[in-house]
Amino acid sequence: MTTTFSATDHAHMARALRLAEKGAYTTKPNPLVGCVIAHGDDIVGEGWHERAGEPHAEVHALRAAGDRARGATAYVTLEPCAHTGRTGPCSEALIAAGVARVVAAMRDPFPQVDGAGFAKLQAAGIAVESGLMETQARALNRGFLSRIERGRPWLRVKLASSLDGRSAMASGESKWISGEASRLDVQHWRARSGAIVTGAGTVLADDPSLTVRLGDDTAFVAPLRVVLDPGLATVARGRVREGDAPTLYLHAPDAKPPRDFDAAHAAVPMIEGRMDLSAVLRLLAERGVNEIQLEAGATLAGAFLAQGLVDEVLLYVAPVLLGENARPLFGGLGIEAMTSKLQLDVIDVRRLGEDTRVLLQPWKQE
Amino acid sequence: MTTTFSATDHAHMARALRLAEKGAYTTKPNPLVGCVIAHGDDIVGEGWHERAGEPHAEVHALRAAGDRARGATAYVTLEPCAHTGRTGPCSEALIAAGVARVVAAMRDPFPQVDGAGFAKLQAAGIAVESGLMETQARALNRGFLSRIERGRPWLRVKLASSLDGRSAMASGESKWISGEASRLDVQHWRARSGAIVTGAGTVLADDPSLTVRLGDDTAFVAPLRVVLDPGLATVARGRVREGDAPTLYLHAPDAKPPRDFDAAHAAVPMIEGRMDLSAVLRLLAERGVNEIQLEAGATLAGAFLAQGLVDEVLLYVAPVLLGENARPLFGGLGIEAMTSKLQLDVIDVRRLGEDTRVLLQPWKQE
Repeated sequence: MTTTFSATDHAHMARALRLAEKGAYTTKPNPLVGCVIAHGDDIVGEGWHERAGEPHAEVHALRAAGDRARGATAYVTLEPCAHTGRTGPCSEALIAAGVARVVAAMRDPFPQVDGAGFAKLQAAGIAVESGLMETQARALNRGFLSRIERGRPWLRVKLASSLDGRSAMASGESKWISGEASRLDVQHWRARSGAIVTGAGTVLADDPSLTVRLGDDTAFVAPLRVVLDPGLATVARGRVREGDAPTLYLHAPDAKPPRDFDAAHAAVPMIEGRMDLSAVLRLLAERGVNEIQLEAGATLAGAFLAQGLVDEVLLYVAPVLLGENARPLFGGLGIEAMTSKLQLDVIDVRRLGEDTRVLLQPWKQE
Repeated sequence: MTTTFSATDHAHMARALRLAEKGAYTTKPNPLVGCVIAHGDDIVGEGWHERAGEPHAEVHALRAAGDRARGATAYVTLEPCAHTGRTGPCSEALIAAGVARVVAAMRDPFPQVDGAGFAKLQAAGIAVESGLMETQARALNRGFLSRIERGRPWLRVKLASSLDGRSAMASGESKWISGEASRLDVQHWRARSGAIVTGAGTVLADDPSLTVRLGDDTAFVAPLRVVLDPGLATVARGRVREGDAPTLYLHAPDAKPPRDFDAAHAAVPMIEGRMDLSAVLRLLAERGVNEIQLEAGATLAGAFLAQGLVDEVLLYVAPVLLGENARPLFGGLGIEAMTSKLQLDVIDVRRLGEDTRVLLQPWKQE
């Protein structure tokens, strides 16, 4: 479908995208969706998907619009669903409400939708257009889309670094490189993640809790805490098992959990003595994880990066120098000449207290 | 003098500071000075010091004001001079023109002025006030003030770094880490410097010309190119001796220049086999250098930093990763624990093309 959209169409879709974003901490594993129902410039109803199992964005918007939905245009950031999951299909609700036109930002690649929602609407005589602000809509649901389209979660590596690119002292000491504003900001990125992944080394060195601490009463669905621990060497200890969030240990097939071990765990194949990281990602996707935040040391972060599995780097740079004996940002990249340097795109740069936060995406060879 | 200055006073001084800045590439070794002559809100004359040996800011402003200088207020970013150098004393010119009031941003610590300008004006019945926007005026002339007050130039370290804090490959290869916009920006910082200092290692590895290439016809006084080369190992070669700018080699006392050596050179004391960097700075201050831009490798940059001689770090960070085998940003800092990390203040962060430019100042123990 190639269509020219009006300024009004853009304004309403932009609003729907902002509404969708409100569900960022709570809809997982569902996609973020926003909906605006309007007659021309006048918005008569709006809504967003808040929580898996609860009504979809369209239902909230239709409820708000009431009779005024008749003859209106519905703007949705994702194709309305055609299937009955935990809630009824939104395409049918839109038909029943008598909307005249549906404008979607993008088709939903989820196998049970994937064009079927559009087809239902069109069969009922509703004008359907798709592709308005699709780039923004894809960015909004980059986690969900990664899981459905690639079979693996979107992987964000979070790192705190000194100006001279060091993530920890030679001893492994790494606490408090970044400042308070950065540490609070990290919590928001954790809140939108489906899983926070770390390695056994980080558990031993830092004993992080990896819970979400937003400092206010903002609602969130606690991300799964995942420890990559081939030999299950860290299961007896650690704040990573405390608190309200679930914890999952991934280990080598031959590792034996202790007899009284009560945490969730699963085996992952090994490749040349190291955990198969692609298998880790497949396993987490199968468990409904859209977005992973990796909070690990240089070795594990470097391994994901070297294997082309990193989608996003969230880097907090503190204005300090740790010197050339401190640990690198990424280990094992194996770069020997300038021509084989790894390139990234800078998505965003901002100041956070004394620190600078840089969001980047590695160039993809694919 | 503690005085309350009006909004009009602030506006005129802000204008005078902007005028002063126009001489940034040309007044060396003189300070930057701007002058505004006004009756109330009305500016009747303005000027700035353009070039050593040519008229001072006050003279330009008085010429522009003509008869309207009588009874006016003169705003100057630095105390008017009291001595006859290559030009007559500005304090006398202000008296002769009949100005009623002089507002200065700061006293001039230069021994031949240092309050004598203010005294002359006051003796002639002119109201004198000082201290308006002094912080900005001191920042403007941080190089000149450093030379006069501390006996050493202001030292800025320019570095281009990868995201992971690497300045060069293990081989020494360092060209083109940063992008085109960054490389042009560097030229402006070079243009305001009195000297560009490098080490023998950089001359051998990169063969830089260290000239100013602004890409347009902006006027500048070419900074002295200084090579720290204890053994005079690089004098036979290099683009650092080509072009219009002067070059100075600093070497160990026992180094012997080749017989046909035609470049300027001077001996500097050695301390435990390394050049005495404080002596290097004293020598350059004696030669009228206000601001140094150090463009060297990790070892020399680290040595200046470790000795507390760095005033400013100009860091261009490119969105690339060079890996843990590449060279560090600073060598020899000898930091072993997080508690002994070096702290810096971030003065400015901005995007330059794909790169991010960060200007910092190390915390001073003094």
